[in-house]
Amino acid sequence: MADDLRKGLEGVLVAESELSSIDGDAGRLIYRGYSIEELAEGASYEEVVYLLWHGRLPTEDELESFVESINEEREVSEDVLATMERLAAADEEPMAALRTAVSMFSASEPEGDADPDDLEAALRKGRRITAKVPTALAAFERYRLGEEPVDPHPDLGLAANFLYMLSGEAPDEVAAETFDQALILHADHGLNASTFTSMVIGSTKADIYSAVTGGVAALSGPLHGGANQDVMEVLFEIDESGLDPLEWVEQATEEGRRIPGFGHRVYNVKDPRAKILQRRSEELAETGESKWYDITTTIEEYLTDEKGLVEKGIAPNVDFYSGSVYYQLGIPIDMYTPIFAMSRVGGWVGHVLEYQEDNRLIRPRARYTGAEDEEFVPVDER
Amino acid sequence: MADDLRKGLEGVLVAESELSSIDGDAGRLIYRGYSIEELAEGASYEEVVYLLWHGRLPTEDELESFVESINEEREVSEDVLATMERLAAADEEPMAALRTAVSMFSASEPEGDADPDDLEAALRKGRRITAKVPTALAAFERYRLGEEPVDPHPDLGLAANFLYMLSGEAPDEVAAETFDQALILHADHGLNASTFTSMVIGSTKADIYSAVTGGVAALSGPLHGGANQDVMEVLFEIDESGLDPLEWVEQATEEGRRIPGFGHRVYNVKDPRAKILQRRSEELAETGESKWYDITTTIEEYLTDEKGLVEKGIAPNVDFYSGSVYYQLGIPIDMYTPIFAMSRVGGWVGHVLEYQEDNRLIRPRARYTGAEDEEFVPVDER
Repeated sequence: MADDLRKGLEGVLVAESELSSIDGDAGRLIYRGYSIEELAEGASYEEVVYLLWHGRLPTEDELESFVESINEEREVSEDVLATMERLAAADEEPMAALRTAVSMFSASEPEGDADPDDLEAALRKGRRITAKVPTALAAFERYRLGEEPVDPHPDLGLAANFLYMLSGEAPDEVAAETFDQALILHADHGLNASTFTSMVIGSTKADIYSAVTGGVAALSGPLHGGANQDVMEVLFEIDESGLDPLEWVEQATEEGRRIPGFGHRVYNVKDPRAKILQRRSEELAETGESKWYDITTTIEEYLTDEKGLVEKGIAPNVDFYSGSVYYQLGIPIDMYTPIFAMSRVGGWVGHVLEYQEDNRLIRPRARYTGAEDEEFVPVDER
Repeated sequence: MADDLRKGLEGVLVAESELSSIDGDAGRLIYRGYSIEELAEGASYEEVVYLLWHGRLPTEDELESFVESINEEREVSEDVLATMERLAAADEEPMAALRTAVSMFSASEPEGDADPDDLEAALRKGRRITAKVPTALAAFERYRLGEEPVDPHPDLGLAANFLYMLSGEAPDEVAAETFDQALILHADHGLNASTFTSMVIGSTKADIYSAVTGGVAALSGPLHGGANQDVMEVLFEIDESGLDPLEWVEQATEEGRRIPGFGHRVYNVKDPRAKILQRRSEELAETGESKWYDITTTIEEYLTDEKGLVEKGIAPNVDFYSGSVYYQLGIPIDMYTPIFAMSRVGGWVGHVLEYQEDNRLIRPRARYTGAEDEEFVPVDER
């Protein structure tokens, strides 16, 4: 019905897509038909990006050449580095710094302004963004620490190389694999607000740099990308309270506090990504600190078994376990959302290109509820 | 119907709004009940921004203090200037430079990260963006010319000051008034793609810097903000062809060429903004070069009278006359879309704040048309 107000566009179908599908009742997420569990287990982030963009998994040769083409594009310009340094000195938020970095990438685009209908060129640009985001982010983090950026490591994949550029040390296998999985899990998720933002921008035939800049901008919002950080802050609070986690969560729910990391607009059961991250958190706990894993499982069990939240359709979402995983990987808390963005570049680029193949400018309407026929009176007579 | 595909969201109502209303059949545009003709004639751009943001026209005192508060915020940081200089040296597109500038403004935000629900703080930030966009844009243009930026002029309003910062000379009254009118005409226009982009970003409770950065990104698209530049390029082509404009347009239409600046998704008759800009173009022609005005009117008359385009609902839109007006004001052609952005900041900020007052995350859906139940095969077995 054209005259119904569809605030939030909940349930409104704005496009067809072959990229990902969510079954919110079954707790199932697939990318192009492959379950997220199998991809997280058997593929690399680069492989998943290839899948999202090209519609099928790459052969060994294709994957090798795809990874190479990404690795060749990792370096960011002196201009981007200089701006990251200035923004770090100005104590800018990492998501805002990333938004600026992506926006600046276009200035060193070797193909310049290609024909906006050249989707092959757009894909190459998307690959450049994918390659450069980790470098710009890590450089920003290094500058904040008063250190020089670390050059990309030629032998490491995207996930391991990011951890390497953050610390200057190559991560161990568990860390690299865990982070790679986290990136796979966050690579796409239907038409969430940031992906949709990228699509609206792309629908004007603006270039992919504009579309991804908009995606970063939307993901920075606390209702979208910010919750993984919130979860970790609650875990710190519990740890610092000195209370037993069970005692803390009983008290908090009695006080009516909302626990972040629970509930999702499209899932009525436990988010399949949360299950995978929970297992990784458990593994990391076995070799490192176990308290974060213990706190999260205690909270989940209490809210699920005692409070019956799951029966109400409120279950752990992807953010509930990602925070403690990232923390155990040594990633600074305010980099959690930028990492989400780093991964989601895959989905943003994929959806924009898919939409542009059969493009239609996205321009909805508002129901006008304002004044009519006001008579203008000049300011000196008001 | 939740299951209908609403590609482009044409006609879909996503919000209520009191800001502006378009009657596409009558060719009428109002901002909060005031006709665009009366506002262009009697108000200043700042006055119109006040109207859009505060819901009523300001008193003399309110307007004075609003203008003062904008003028106080005009300066941009050294960081922004340094980045504009680098981007100018890298031959960046002006819209991409502006996107980066707006994204960087947040780093010098004196209120820092206010509570995302503090809409008063968001409004002050919106005012800062409004104040700084002209300065950053003019600085970029000066750097491109190999000149130093010109500091804002304390006695000039937003429109006149921008022309002053571009050239270093205060504009005459006709130029200042004409440009001010052009800004008023472009300040808001319902939920166009860039405004809607800002709203989607704002719906995540991302800050207003993120929302406006996204607006600039969307406006850069050739299907949205780029057409005013296209019109001017056609006018140049006609001028250089040596043909009589009538002869040129006859030939061009015979060849099936689309003439830019005609047709609009929401107007079936002549865009009311085009009428006002046509009059300004005529006035500028009386004191300056008349050929641009003559060419445009010849084209319009031919397409309207001979080809009957208006009967088909295809009439001159705002872009058809804005190009020649800007050209006569001495504004470089690739600054036309950035100028559109400079004006539209008023609408973007207004719509984001209005939406956030009764916020709901904007998250539509896609109809999944991809594969199901693919079986994962490891890469070395493919």
